[in-house]
Amino acid sequence: MTERPVASPPSTASRLTAEAIGTFLLVFGGVGTALFASHFANEAAVFAPGVGYLATASAFGLTVVVGAAAFAGVSGAHFNPAVTLGLAAAGRFAWADTWKYIVVQVIGGAVATTFLVLIGLFGPAGWLEEAQNAGFGSNGWGPLSPGGFQLPAVIITEVLLTAVFLFVILGSTHPERGTTLAPVAIGLTLALIHLVSIPVDGTSVNPARSIASALYGGGTALAQLWVFLVFPVVGALIAGYAYRAVFADRP
Amino acid sequence: MTERPVASPPSTASRLTAEAIGTFLLVFGGVGTALFASHFANEAAVFAPGVGYLATASAFGLTVVVGAAAFAGVSGAHFNPAVTLGLAAAGRFAWADTWKYIVVQVIGGAVATTFLVLIGLFGPAGWLEEAQNAGFGSNGWGPLSPGGFQLPAVIITEVLLTAVFLFVILGSTHPERGTTLAPVAIGLTLALIHLVSIPVDGTSVNPARSIASALYGGGTALAQLWVFLVFPVVGALIAGYAYRAVFADRP
Amino acid sequence: MTERPVASPPSTASRLTAEAIGTFLLVFGGVGTALFASHFANEAAVFAPGVGYLATASAFGLTVVVGAAAFAGVSGAHFNPAVTLGLAAAGRFAWADTWKYIVVQVIGGAVATTFLVLIGLFGPAGWLEEAQNAGFGSNGWGPLSPGGFQLPAVIITEVLLTAVFLFVILGSTHPERGTTLAPVAIGLTLALIHLVSIPVDGTSVNPARSIASALYGGGTALAQLWVFLVFPVVGALIAGYAYRAVFADRP
Amino acid sequence: MTERPVASPPSTASRLTAEAIGTFLLVFGGVGTALFASHFANEAAVFAPGVGYLATASAFGLTVVVGAAAFAGVSGAHFNPAVTLGLAAAGRFAWADTWKYIVVQVIGGAVATTFLVLIGLFGPAGWLEEAQNAGFGSNGWGPLSPGGFQLPAVIITEVLLTAVFLFVILGSTHPERGTTLAPVAIGLTLALIHLVSIPVDGTSVNPARSIASALYGGGTALAQLWVFLVFPVVGALIAGYAYRAVFADRP
Repeated sequence: MTERPVASPPSTASRLTAEAIGTFLLVFGGVGTALFASHFANEAAVFAPGVGYLATASAFGLTVVVGAAAFAGVSGAHFNPAVTLGLAAAGRFAWADTWKYIVVQVIGGAVATTFLVLIGLFGPAGWLEEAQNAGFGSNGWGPLSPGGFQLPAVIITEVLLTAVFLFVILGSTHPERGTTLAPVAIGLTLALIHLVSIPVDGTSVNPARSIASALYGGGTALAQLWVFLVFPVVGALIAGYAYRAVFADRP
Repeated sequence: MTERPVASPPSTASRLTAEAIGTFLLVFGGVGTALFASHFANEAAVFAPGVGYLATASAFGLTVVVGAAAFAGVSGAHFNPAVTLGLAAAGRFAWADTWKYIVVQVIGGAVATTFLVLIGLFGPAGWLEEAQNAGFGSNGWGPLSPGGFQLPAVIITEVLLTAVFLFVILGSTHPERGTTLAPVAIGLTLALIHLVSIPVDGTSVNPARSIASALYGGGTALAQLWVFLVFPVVGALIAGYAYRAVFADRP
Repeated sequence: MTERPVASPPSTASRLTAEAIGTFLLVFGGVGTALFASHFANEAAVFAPGVGYLATASAFGLTVVVGAAAFAGVSGAHFNPAVTLGLAAAGRFAWADTWKYIVVQVIGGAVATTFLVLIGLFGPAGWLEEAQNAGFGSNGWGPLSPGGFQLPAVIITEVLLTAVFLFVILGSTHPERGTTLAPVAIGLTLALIHLVSIPVDGTSVNPARSIASALYGGGTALAQLWVFLVFPVVGALIAGYAYRAVFADRP
Repeated sequence: MTERPVASPPSTASRLTAEAIGTFLLVFGGVGTALFASHFANEAAVFAPGVGYLATASAFGLTVVVGAAAFAGVSGAHFNPAVTLGLAAAGRFAWADTWKYIVVQVIGGAVATTFLVLIGLFGPAGWLEEAQNAGFGSNGWGPLSPGGFQLPAVIITEVLLTAVFLFVILGSTHPERGTTLAPVAIGLTLALIHLVSIPVDGTSVNPARSIASALYGGGTALAQLWVFLVFPVVGALIAGYAYRAVFADRP
């Protein structure tokens, strides 16, 4: 659409603000829905599979659809350190800018869970303690896995699904073969990923989201956090390099 | 698409009619689903978390998707006094027109709950009384909060989520960085907001929707109504001014 | 997109085939989901509110989204006599062609429920009898209303919601103010309409769908059928004429 | 959009890789959600109708939406031997290439269930055995039908719904009458098909998906597999030839 006015490139400050707000929204919307919905579904686990399951998966997906609609034109709408690094691996984002994005993503996510705690302080008696004892929406294996899965299952799942996430991002935003539906497709991918893997480990594929909940999730959540920093990034890097090699990105 | 015929600007009468119909649809669809679905889910609370939860959130989101698809070209599809004021704060809507929009939005919403009462008169015995005793879908805290949350939790939630709503609206309809998916994205944002906050206060972010249900929701609902007039507007104004400042709207 | 090849206008035979297939899909998908899902939700009513509720509403909405994506370019994708008549009232469809569309829509719907019966013949013992005794997904009031609503509630609901349906169709496909998202918006409107009104009367807004299920739904369903022939059409005609008057369609 | 850069045609290797990844995603996402979600819904059947029902249908639909968004520009995003053959019948795909697509689709699906088994090895005690004893998400009739339907019901359902699937694919991607929403519409069609027919036979309409689950589903699943190789293809071929004849494709 050639008649569309061309915007001046967004400033670094506005790009970083967009990433922070978007990651805030992802964590507040996704983890918040999980915490509140699971409480009402009368299940012990914070990520209650069952009634709250589809709601939680939908919420995570929606956060990305709406965040991308709002901010893709400003920052690219990563909202996820693994996505930022995977895009860099694929040659779509400058390595030099990755650390700035990652810092504000982690801050945005941590502010989100802090607000959830704040709201919980004015919740029903015992709610906040109960939610924190159950891990406050943290990712994990063994005692923190909603379905009782062990570490190897979690590692396979996080590597595989983060790679899938990056393949869809790279394909749907490809300059020649992409689609205007990309924001919707990418958000729906995150919903799908949650549908599959909430029972396994509560679904990370996003270190900023895992850090945000582990901050308030107690000792076990913090002790297991490294897995959700390492393996989503591994999956994203594999996908980034592989996509570039196989699909001849920008030939 | 240069060959598209250019319409003459819609008249004020048609714009106000569109806002009234759209707000009618939002309240009839959203509150109606909550009232009817919760009844069948055999839960005491009118906004029954659990089975009816995802249905109610979906219904509110869908009302905006379809209302915007039908009327965005006529009135801009606000359907919400907080949105109208937030857009004015961001410089996207004339302050002088805000009061007209707000009046018809409130009327459209009130007509919707009046029709729900009318239908309820021909419902199963006792249904209408029961629904009204439970607040008729009103927003509230303490006894009216589905999850037993208190006033401070409600204030934080309404300010925060209305601000998020305005950020997505302003970003996705931005003249240079927006997206043709805006109607879908904005509606899905409202669905997401409901997924997160129905347990807190039944979710307002919209004074017209809160007025509409409080009219038939009894004394407590009316006494608590001021919160849902004030804080969604506060959130919307903050977001409107902040968006303009940070994201250099129309530089 | 000027470079897009211009198709020759579709033949009458292909237009009528498209309407028949689309209405088949609407009834087979929507009523089929209701019948099968409700059976597994262990509820007595065929349109089981509760677990099967959101699934049934989604199915009806999806049938229109996908039918419109497939056939809008051929026949306009009405799949509903009320829509055909409402579009004629609004000046968007030739009155002279309405009867042909209506005939094939009714046939397409009846073939769909016939196939559902055929599949049910090879279902679990007693399933078909039970489904037919419960009305085979028919619309109705009193004993056939999932929520026990009476005739006046049903009349208000059908007139109002069919009018809403037509407003969204007319607005989203408006030549100057419409949107490329129209097929999605129209389908989601039907989903929303079902979310609100399944408890009231099982949701018609479509005489072809009501005829199709009443054919196999027993005496009460047939005796109540006239309501779902008359009032959706009344709502559609009101909306068609009103839209034309208020929104200055094709000025 | 004439200013869009024109990509060189994708290589055969990248097309086949895209089909393999996409079919992997379809099976991993769809069957994986069914297996994990049903386990937590405390139902005996692997394809638990009820709570897990809508989640499973949504997951299958989403796999196609996101797979098509990622890879439609590379391979056409079939992910299904019946689709490949139906497109060939309609004159949209070269018969000579069909066997290559089918081989990699079958491989991609088989790799997906292999990964699900691998993850299950590190799942809760007894989970993998239980899932395999229940058929590991296999399609089937009689003892393998979630709703107790018999073979003739399954044959009608698979032929009919695969034909519907192809009609939507052919219509929504039609060069003159198609829509940019095609990836979404096609995925939603698959969701709709699952909503209707999970109770009948667990829903195939895709031989690659049926092979993938039967590989780990035990003797009955393997003995019944032929039905899900033959009848989806029959439905697809009927639809392909019929669409070409009736709707005058590429006149």
